[in-house]
Amino acid sequence: MTETPNPDRSAWDELPVRDELRGKSPYGAPQLDVPVQLNTNENPYPLPEPLVARIAERVAEAARTLNRYPDRDAVELRTELARYLTRTGKHPVAVENVWAANGSNEVLQQLLQTFGGPGRTAIGFEPSYSMHALIARGTGTGWISGPRNDDFTIDVAAAEQAIAGHRPDVVFITSPNNPTGTAVAADTVLALYEAAQAAKPSLVVVDEAYVEFSHRDSLLPLIEGRPNLVISRTMSKAFGAAGLRLGYLAAHPAVVDAVQLVRLPYHLSAVTQATALAALEHTDTLLGYVEQLKAERDRLVTELRGIGCEVTDSDANFVQFGKFPDSHVAWRRILDRGVLVRDNGVPGWLRVTAGTPEENDAFLDAVRELMKEQER
Amino acid sequence: MTETPNPDRSAWDELPVRDELRGKSPYGAPQLDVPVQLNTNENPYPLPEPLVARIAERVAEAARTLNRYPDRDAVELRTELARYLTRTGKHPVAVENVWAANGSNEVLQQLLQTFGGPGRTAIGFEPSYSMHALIARGTGTGWISGPRNDDFTIDVAAAEQAIAGHRPDVVFITSPNNPTGTAVAADTVLALYEAAQAAKPSLVVVDEAYVEFSHRDSLLPLIEGRPNLVISRTMSKAFGAAGLRLGYLAAHPAVVDAVQLVRLPYHLSAVTQATALAALEHTDTLLGYVEQLKAERDRLVTELRGIGCEVTDSDANFVQFGKFPDSHVAWRRILDRGVLVRDNGVPGWLRVTAGTPEENDAFLDAVRELMKEQER
Repeated sequence: MTETPNPDRSAWDELPVRDELRGKSPYGAPQLDVPVQLNTNENPYPLPEPLVARIAERVAEAARTLNRYPDRDAVELRTELARYLTRTGKHPVAVENVWAANGSNEVLQQLLQTFGGPGRTAIGFEPSYSMHALIARGTGTGWISGPRNDDFTIDVAAAEQAIAGHRPDVVFITSPNNPTGTAVAADTVLALYEAAQAAKPSLVVVDEAYVEFSHRDSLLPLIEGRPNLVISRTMSKAFGAAGLRLGYLAAHPAVVDAVQLVRLPYHLSAVTQATALAALEHTDTLLGYVEQLKAERDRLVTELRGIGCEVTDSDANFVQFGKFPDSHVAWRRILDRGVLVRDNGVPGWLRVTAGTPEENDAFLDAVRELMKEQER
Repeated sequence: MTETPNPDRSAWDELPVRDELRGKSPYGAPQLDVPVQLNTNENPYPLPEPLVARIAERVAEAARTLNRYPDRDAVELRTELARYLTRTGKHPVAVENVWAANGSNEVLQQLLQTFGGPGRTAIGFEPSYSMHALIARGTGTGWISGPRNDDFTIDVAAAEQAIAGHRPDVVFITSPNNPTGTAVAADTVLALYEAAQAAKPSLVVVDEAYVEFSHRDSLLPLIEGRPNLVISRTMSKAFGAAGLRLGYLAAHPAVVDAVQLVRLPYHLSAVTQATALAALEHTDTLLGYVEQLKAERDRLVTELRGIGCEVTDSDANFVQFGKFPDSHVAWRRILDRGVLVRDNGVPGWLRVTAGTPEENDAFLDAVRELMKEQER
């Protein structure tokens, strides 16, 4: 939901929609047909062909009982996700700690329906993942925009003060942060968790959608002994499966129990469960692509700085770069050269997804030309 | 959400969940391992093997670009759903009239987020599909329980009065009604639509999850000239695809535009879209199974009446039968004979899904024994 109107205004105007939705337009990056698409933080590597074959095999198996409802509790999938987290997150996690839904957006929606909602509020430290605010609004949760430092790290003292002052019911911390790219230190999360418990207590959600690309470890071990701390994850990025829509969380089992009260029954289809299970069988291969992307991300940071750009430290599969007198004009100039990046509305800055080496070269060439142009 | 407590009460009690969720338990039929399962209105016929192969083929194709986000607007799928509705619904429908989501539950949730929500109300005529009330609560929408006649048809005068009195923002009409089975006449829907427009105006949602099994035509043509009327449908029943989670709606294009403001972006995975498209290619075969099930449903009605049961007229793939002095005891007696039916909490009545001829025979035998037992 940003600006722009709807085509058929007259019919729209007469619909009995909620007042706060009037004049809004749907969330979503422009989908333009451009040779190099580096705007939505997708993984540029297609799934390997043996995994495609395995998906077809598991989905065919699931399709043979598609007339029946899927496993409502997705036990096999949650067990495998727990195994993956245990292996990579330096903390043992069991099926009871894990919940899955159609993308981490649905996970976050379920958390806000359970712990936020009408008469309650959530805070995020902006700029951050803009869906946090949108899902809050969609669930009737009031939204509080918290502060950041000029370098886009969290200003711990100011954040603690905001939490103490507003007493929000839900606190979002995005690590690595999107669109700025930097991961959050465990100390910062612990400080905000303490502040949030002292103020209310409230639920603290650490959105780790990009954590597999980080220089820092996952904050997963922090859930131990902290029942109000939730780690949110996704298979969209590291598993190269944005099209699958599989998000999940790790938390105390009571949190998993609680979201059962708002989840739609059988929300996760049998084909989604089968496809995710196939992808988890190929974890090692997919994490190999992650290593390649981390190297390319580091190269983007180095080369952009060499060109004369400012770059925010990145722990993600994308890089925030600037600063431009007018970031929308810069976005357009790069697009004119066949490369689509993202203007997230952070004044002076743009965001580029780490693509294949060839895509990144095309992007760097476009920025080089842009910077020369700006010097003239 | 019904009764029963949560296992780990202490952790649960300290979680900052919304007050109205405390003491509730998740929605869902008991999943018991019983030879004959006739409790969740699933289609008993597995998908034919050529369709399973086609699903594997289309999903493999989708998996090759699974690293990319799916088509956010599901244009190909909505086009094919529109074609299906046009062909079977006696009314031309275009892609702009159709929206799809993960099961009709998600469609209804999006409608309530858009047209209901905090400070607004929805009405249903109960007993009806219990998820209407639960999704209303999950979206912060107030719920009003409207009346029915003793034969479970809608009492038009009483319903009009309830609408005029409560001025709800959303009106649910389930046709065929679940769990009672009877379809609603077009005149009744038109009367309630007029009442709802005069009172507010409000959105009228006709939930036609089971309409392919009905003796009556779909109410789809009623959307013409009525921008506040929505028809909700699903592929779970007639398409034998409960495991797929594909629901959809048909309405004025402005309604489709409106739900874009609350839908989670990329809510419908590429594998779900691919599987649904494959199933739509096999529509004729699947509608053939529907004809078999209608015949079996009619046989269940006739034989149950022959045994001495009362039976509500059924336009669905299930039958409501009774009356029992204690329906839970009757449910248990039938279960003891290896047949799982549904106790929907309608005093004196139970609901059985039309299964295969063999499953229905087993069910009828169980009821025969039960009735003899009760005579003694």
